[in-house]
Amino acid sequence: MRVLGVDPGTAITGYGVIDVVGNRLTAVAYDCIRTSAGWAMPQRLLYLYRGLQDVLERYRPQHFAIEELFFNKNTRTALAVGQARGVALLAAARSGLLVGEYTPLQVKQAVTGYGRAGKQQVQFMVRSLLCLPAVPRPDDVADALAVAICHAHCAPGGSRKCL
Amino acid sequence: MRVLGVDPGTAITGYGVIDVVGNRLTAVAYDCIRTSAGWAMPQRLLYLYRGLQDVLERYRPQHFAIEELFFNKNTRTALAVGQARGVALLAAARSGLLVGEYTPLQVKQAVTGYGRAGKQQVQFMVRSLLCLPAVPRPDDVADALAVAICHAHCAPGGSRKCL
Repeated sequence: MRVLGVDPGTAITGYGVIDVVGNRLTAVAYDCIRTSAGWAMPQRLLYLYRGLQDVLERYRPQHFAIEELFFNKNTRTALAVGQARGVALLAAARSGLLVGEYTPLQVKQAVTGYGRAGKQQVQFMVRSLLCLPAVPRPDDVADALAVAICHAHCAPGGSRKCL
Repeated sequence: MRVLGVDPGTAITGYGVIDVVGNRLTAVAYDCIRTSAGWAMPQRLLYLYRGLQDVLERYRPQHFAIEELFFNKNTRTALAVGQARGVALLAAARSGLLVGEYTPLQVKQAVTGYGRAGKQQVQFMVRSLLCLPAVPRPDDVADALAVAICHAHCAPGGSRKCL
């Protein structure tokens, strides 16, 4: 199966496409969609939506994975990320993809075996599991690949039982 | 000009379409789009998006008005509303509408003349300004009409100077 993982944001949305055959994972594509702070929000969301549509059309994943987000403090950030997340979920739904949502704990557990692993440990394992030449930058891209890997493990037909 | 006002939410999204000729306001249509709590979030957002597309195609507004939201406490609510808001802004941007965003204070000021007016006062004035037979229900519909009225007053070519 082919999984698109997305880490949404209005400024930077990371994405990663991976192929899953048995317990073997291969990175197909990974990059990010950037919008300018100078653009109005509707234009930023439109650019993000079109960028994700391009990715969906080019790589034709069957599955879509995204983190469930929790915020402790900043409701402004939650609202902004929520907008980008809504657009990403809409793109997935319009393409008929199966959507998996995972908590940060599930993602860390799936990628490193430890639910409270640090960012560097997650990035190290993303690179290692996908045999990448370097840690993907910016962080949003590595996070998108991490949630795709989590889905590969957790989804029905995935290689491992989930938490 | 014709203005679509939207009060977004994942459960209920209120909308109101008004025509503005000089300082005369006419309600063209107002209702809400409801999704079930039993549906997965991507399906709820897709249903909302399609509902808004229907409204845009049927009534062909040139302007789109929405509240700027601020949350003091609940980041979970902010994230959920953010998702619905992102989808609504995307629908507006894809249709090439001019988007106006207004603070709750601006909306209350435009509709009642008092930025700290209560909900009932706002609803009374929405009914009065649009000569409606009753206060639109649920609250989300009245709020959508209120932000559309605010845009009618504040936008370039509107009947009044804004704050």
